[in-house]
Amino acid sequence: MKEALNLNSCSMPHIDLSPELPGIRALASYRPDTGKPLYELAQVLLRGGDSPLSEAERELIAAYVSYLNQCTFCYSSHAAAARFLFKQDAELVDLTLDDLENAPLSDKLKALLRIAAKVQQDARNVSPQDVETARSFGANDWDIHDTVLIAATFCMFNRYVDGLATNTPAADELGIWATMGERMGTIGYVPPSSTK
Amino acid sequence: MKEALNLNSCSMPHIDLSPELPGIRALASYRPDTGKPLYELAQVLLRGGDSPLSEAERELIAAYVSYLNQCTFCYSSHAAAARFLFKQDAELVDLTLDDLENAPLSDKLKALLRIAAKVQQDARNVSPQDVETARSFGANDWDIHDTVLIAATFCMFNRYVDGLATNTPAADELGIWATMGERMGTIGYVPPSSTK
Repeated sequence: MKEALNLNSCSMPHIDLSPELPGIRALASYRPDTGKPLYELAQVLLRGGDSPLSEAERELIAAYVSYLNQCTFCYSSHAAAARFLFKQDAELVDLTLDDLENAPLSDKLKALLRIAAKVQQDARNVSPQDVETARSFGANDWDIHDTVLIAATFCMFNRYVDGLATNTPAADELGIWATMGERMGTIGYVPPSSTK
Repeated sequence: MKEALNLNSCSMPHIDLSPELPGIRALASYRPDTGKPLYELAQVLLRGGDSPLSEAERELIAAYVSYLNQCTFCYSSHAAAARFLFKQDAELVDLTLDDLENAPLSDKLKALLRIAAKVQQDARNVSPQDVETARSFGANDWDIHDTVLIAATFCMFNRYVDGLATNTPAADELGIWATMGERMGTIGYVPPSSTK
């Protein structure tokens, strides 16, 4: 990872971050004691085995919210992780980001993604009706909880990454994102060494 | 805490949460494995001893962002914690929430709160000029990092709490918030027992 990245040199981070590390990894390296719970949260929320949502579905929620927040680093990396995890159905990811309402998703996942979009905008607008609709398609409390927490969590990560103007791989280097997505889909969320 | 709370019964949480616990505490009790890193993050970020920002200043940033997000539970509790920690200067908290630009804060803290407000809205808008202004008043990388991460973190907590319509103490029970603020200012962030 460290050697492969050609980071976009058009912008400078707002603070002195390791130039070899992109996005959230540079931040977790800058302050490891906050990086540790952030990575632990990502791991348990996106990879924890007990969620009724598949890992691919959880990554899709993360990518969708990051896309709505227009956070290039988070959207690109989590969309890549979702593509990797959806395997032969990888095209679902881009179809969802392009047009949620017409994407060939289950009614349940579509209802959950609509809730995620409300959380991204103003979470107070999630209505009992939104939740009831998701339940009518089979969602349970845990699905709803995890959807809201994933959406809220990426509203944090997106702001953390963009608010400090962290390094983001140049947009045309698509191979970078696929590599990152495969890593996220296999190794999961492991914080970088604090030794940089 | 458990006995003292008179929770607002006008709204029902979207999922089955412990009725005795308010806001984030009910959520950490519902899913302790995500609650653990969330509480650890709050503790290290708001209470970790190495930050150049005082605990009172960090709570003020948390309250200010929560106020901008109109999250009653988070704003009320963190404003109370900030009042407790500012001691004889407690009035600074409400003066800041009422009118940041005219509040009697240091130029440095005001510049950092302006950055926090940009993170709350759209973190991509934090400009090199915003950061340079904060530096001209004495802010260093760590101040800027912690400001952005606190703001981002409360954009998460606010959405998590409101997106699931968690119980919030009735607005007129002001004694509740002061009690909660003192607890947050002394004990810090300790997750509720997973046994409820």
